[in-house]
Amino acid sequence: MGKLVIQKYGGTSVGTTDKIKNVANRIKSYYEKGNKVVVVVSAMGHTTDELLDLAERVNPNPSKRELDMLLSTGEQVSISLLAMALEAIHVPAQSFTGAQVRIMTDGNFSNAKIQAIDDSKIRKALDEGKVAIVAGFQGIDQEENITTLGRGGSDTTAVALAAALKADECEIYTDVDGVFTADPNKVAGAKMHEKISYDEMLELASLGAGVLHSRSVELAKNYDVVIHVRSSFHSNPGTLVVSEEKLVEKVTVSGVTIKKEEARITIPDVPDKPGIAADLFGALAEEDIIVDVIVQTSPENGKNDISFTIPRKAIRNATPILENFCQRHQTGKMQINDKIAIVSAVGVGMKSHVGVASRMFKALAENNINIEMITTSEIKISCVIPEEQGQTALKAIHAAFINNN
Amino acid sequence: MGKLVIQKYGGTSVGTTDKIKNVANRIKSYYEKGNKVVVVVSAMGHTTDELLDLAERVNPNPSKRELDMLLSTGEQVSISLLAMALEAIHVPAQSFTGAQVRIMTDGNFSNAKIQAIDDSKIRKALDEGKVAIVAGFQGIDQEENITTLGRGGSDTTAVALAAALKADECEIYTDVDGVFTADPNKVAGAKMHEKISYDEMLELASLGAGVLHSRSVELAKNYDVVIHVRSSFHSNPGTLVVSEEKLVEKVTVSGVTIKKEEARITIPDVPDKPGIAADLFGALAEEDIIVDVIVQTSPENGKNDISFTIPRKAIRNATPILENFCQRHQTGKMQINDKIAIVSAVGVGMKSHVGVASRMFKALAENNINIEMITTSEIKISCVIPEEQGQTALKAIHAAFINNN
Repeated sequence: MGKLVIQKYGGTSVGTTDKIKNVANRIKSYYEKGNKVVVVVSAMGHTTDELLDLAERVNPNPSKRELDMLLSTGEQVSISLLAMALEAIHVPAQSFTGAQVRIMTDGNFSNAKIQAIDDSKIRKALDEGKVAIVAGFQGIDQEENITTLGRGGSDTTAVALAAALKADECEIYTDVDGVFTADPNKVAGAKMHEKISYDEMLELASLGAGVLHSRSVELAKNYDVVIHVRSSFHSNPGTLVVSEEKLVEKVTVSGVTIKKEEARITIPDVPDKPGIAADLFGALAEEDIIVDVIVQTSPENGKNDISFTIPRKAIRNATPILENFCQRHQTGKMQINDKIAIVSAVGVGMKSHVGVASRMFKALAENNINIEMITTSEIKISCVIPEEQGQTALKAIHAAFINNN
Repeated sequence: MGKLVIQKYGGTSVGTTDKIKNVANRIKSYYEKGNKVVVVVSAMGHTTDELLDLAERVNPNPSKRELDMLLSTGEQVSISLLAMALEAIHVPAQSFTGAQVRIMTDGNFSNAKIQAIDDSKIRKALDEGKVAIVAGFQGIDQEENITTLGRGGSDTTAVALAAALKADECEIYTDVDGVFTADPNKVAGAKMHEKISYDEMLELASLGAGVLHSRSVELAKNYDVVIHVRSSFHSNPGTLVVSEEKLVEKVTVSGVTIKKEEARITIPDVPDKPGIAADLFGALAEEDIIVDVIVQTSPENGKNDISFTIPRKAIRNATPILENFCQRHQTGKMQINDKIAIVSAVGVGMKSHVGVASRMFKALAENNINIEMITTSEIKISCVIPEEQGQTALKAIHAAFINNN
């Protein structure tokens, strides 16, 4: 008895017509074992960038509705080519746009959230013995406007389909072998996980180490969909993303990451009164500036020092907002340090292990790395350090927790 | 009081982002006069060829459903870019795919016929003061599969919208100034028509002289939509395609055309029995081979000679079919002449003028051009002649009817 399998292939996996043929052959091997296969694909390689370039030339600031209309063509090209490639090797296939399988979203163009999926057309195609190929990244709102789901949207499409169809497996094919304890290109001893929990994956995703985008992991967690992250270049098993209960061994630290190209902003002598943080970070959020680490010192004479990190490339947009804030609240002079990095250790085992933070600090101290800021969550510790020492820090923390386990 | 205007821009008019900006400016000038504007666009320049090339690489013989899924992305790119270009010059605009305005067609992929249009979304956009931009060439069938309308499909979309919306004008913008008495690149004295009838336009279209595709002209005739053919490069008036009653002066010959790259097939001694022509031409039609001129001699001893023309590039596919036919019916030996051309004169005035054919034959005779085959319809005379004399024949006929008028 065959399974119902969702397979998602990203842009690099379908980057050329030859790669599309490879994907078709891989799908065929699953199909021929009697499985029902639903495939989600992204746009081919650089298609999205090429479309954005066209848009830029006619309008540097296009409406998001029209941008979504434009970008959604990328996946439509991929699904039809993949269906043709399957037909060429005698596998019956049928492609579907987001609109055709009514992937209903809210009307938040360029970053829409899936609200419902009508699986009837897909089920019909599967019952007819076809492989169903669904365009990732796209949906429609109540007025049938085309929407897109934002970064990593195709992963979200795959997980949403797995939930809607109650699929037996949800495989996310990518250009890496699975989820590692650290980027194997940066840390020689990095190990691949057999399993990792949703929460750890979420923390790693938000740190930019994301093989998967946060929203797809959140959705998988909510609907208890096991995600199988694996390589599209071979058939090695990869990593399963599962609920915490399914982890046999809860490791203290499952991942170490580094985020570069960040800047630290410090505003001294901020009046200690309600609403002041909301004022500051609300203004930054309005300009879509992502604030990561935030540290506020304890009040002293009714004044706080507030430090936080933003992406380095956001400094230019942030500066007038921050200067305005400083003037309105008569703070001290804002300081910017644009030579920092953020190293983080993530692991569900932290909840039950003591001394994790001190072990991390010790590893940094032994390498003469000064810690400028520290934040912790239940399963994550992040330190802001000088950027030039980032690589050393990453290796030291990885060695302390993972290679020395 | 503004008008409701449909404007259609073809692939060359929107071939580059600069050209799209030009089109946007032209639309703006209509919009600012208080007109309601609905725009139909084709895919940018060579997009369709590029998509076909991608398809060819994964499957030399793809299913038509998937091909339509692929090709329809071309227009979706154009409509979104044009909407963005209009927004950039402060003209509110909204783009619509064929699916979104429910251009319902039959399920005949790659050559679908429009059955109905739901104009509610377009009317809503117009009422909101927006320019509505609709993807040409595409629709959906009852199962919401994406279909395409075949060659010249965007013209058909424009005319169908003009009929559905009861538009005041239906302008087809193209890279020529209007409809001429002959191709102005081939005949120096060719004149542009101010008006031409649907039937003449249909004959000219089927002769390949088509600024407009036959189906759009048929639809315009059925719904009495006046088509305005004009250049997208300047604002000269162009040609109106109207019903015969609206022609003030019915000229004898309104157009002279030549069709090259044709071949004449002659099959001698075909048994004169019912169903034999259906057998022959049915077999050719099944292979999508277009037969143009057909001549059958009167039966003599129970045998006919059948001659007909096909496109020269179809000879290879036609040969085995024809050889099989000759064998089955024990005809004489088939002859192929692949050095012929077809010259035609078209005009509604022929109906009421005598001596048109003889005048045409005289013009050819005076230039020592031998006529190999002749066919006539109510408003057309076609002669098959040696290809090398084609250009001479075209000029001679044009001079006889038009420059000597």
